[in-house]
Amino acid sequence: MTVERTLHHFPLDPASRQVRLALGEKRVAFHEVAERYWERRPELTRLNPSGMTPVLVETDGGKTLVVCESRAILEHLEEVTPEPELMGRDLAERAETRRLLQWFDRKFDYEVNGLLLHEKMEKRLLGLGAPDPANMRAGREALRAHLGYVEKLLTERDWLNGRRLSLADFAAAANFSVIDYFGDVPWTDFPAARTWYTKIKSRPCFRPLLTDRWPGLAPVAHYDDLDF
Amino acid sequence: MTVERTLHHFPLDPASRQVRLALGEKRVAFHEVAERYWERRPELTRLNPSGMTPVLVETDGGKTLVVCESRAILEHLEEVTPEPELMGRDLAERAETRRLLQWFDRKFDYEVNGLLLHEKMEKRLLGLGAPDPANMRAGREALRAHLGYVEKLLTERDWLNGRRLSLADFAAAANFSVIDYFGDVPWTDFPAARTWYTKIKSRPCFRPLLTDRWPGLAPVAHYDDLDF
Repeated sequence: MTVERTLHHFPLDPASRQVRLALGEKRVAFHEVAERYWERRPELTRLNPSGMTPVLVETDGGKTLVVCESRAILEHLEEVTPEPELMGRDLAERAETRRLLQWFDRKFDYEVNGLLLHEKMEKRLLGLGAPDPANMRAGREALRAHLGYVEKLLTERDWLNGRRLSLADFAAAANFSVIDYFGDVPWTDFPAARTWYTKIKSRPCFRPLLTDRWPGLAPVAHYDDLDF
Repeated sequence: MTVERTLHHFPLDPASRQVRLALGEKRVAFHEVAERYWERRPELTRLNPSGMTPVLVETDGGKTLVVCESRAILEHLEEVTPEPELMGRDLAERAETRRLLQWFDRKFDYEVNGLLLHEKMEKRLLGLGAPDPANMRAGREALRAHLGYVEKLLTERDWLNGRRLSLADFAAAANFSVIDYFGDVPWTDFPAARTWYTKIKSRPCFRPLLTDRWPGLAPVAHYDDLDF
């Protein structure tokens, strides 16, 4: 019996994008349901009481397993489809990957997404009025600090958690890519980060993200350019 | 060679408390360093670039492993000290535990801690002035909604993720216990949650949390009362 998978996601949600990249890298086939999470569709809330994306539904014969929230899905995928291994090969690598997952899920999310994406994307999707320039400026400053940190790591390392591609790279790329959709990543000032992002962007797992478009939210011209 | 462990934590940090409960339940001995994370002690930032607690440092002979952030530490402990198992015995249990970890780490943290603990605790620790009554009111309302959700789960289940104690219970109890330190949990309106909390509070792993006191922040009278 093969497992059938359906991912409920919002294309411009960094958490959903982490899962799409992991599924793509592991060459796991899945159906997609694009969710407008802010509309609180009852079917989505029934699957995940928090009402948030991503949610992975696996059916295997008559059995259904619902896995909610990005970290739960990523840990689950490492358990059920261990190859290629993306968390890390030993305790130290896994600790470093998970530290960086938390970094992007919380610190980056609070400091950058909570300001920049909220102003540029959520306010439009939810009809909350015009963006606040002060918030956008604060978000862009925080973004530069985070890019600086990634730049520093990448001058010492091949990939974010060390010598091998991991979920840490996908977490970072998922977050940067949504900001990049709106043209707000100052790549030219961060050459090592830019080279790293070019490598991730060129991977087959990234292709579906480059075709994402959302009504009313057009991406910048270079968004899907592999030689940006 | 035995592994020596040191936990850098802040006693009233819900994320740190999750780890202390897990270590206690697994009967893993550890040294403690109480951190005032808001003072950005260089040694803490060197261990964890985010500057946040908790951080677990393991030394085994000459080898040192640093594990930063609560989720990373909890997943790590399940790998290195699997008994008693606290994540869940099968994929469905683990998915449910991790869903609830995310619920408390993000949703509860945003909606309750970000308002109520920020106003009642952080502002005092960081010298940010008087609490804002509107924020406290909004935080208390959100707290009631979360208690209602826990109450609903506990009328259907013995423990939060199902039939066995798990990290989901520790995540919930860690968060509620810090609010409870300040006397803000309306237990009487949520009888199933109250019974569940009494059970957790009576466990040996919880004892160290009941003796926590922080200068300038006195707990309410019933805080360490097992029959509250």
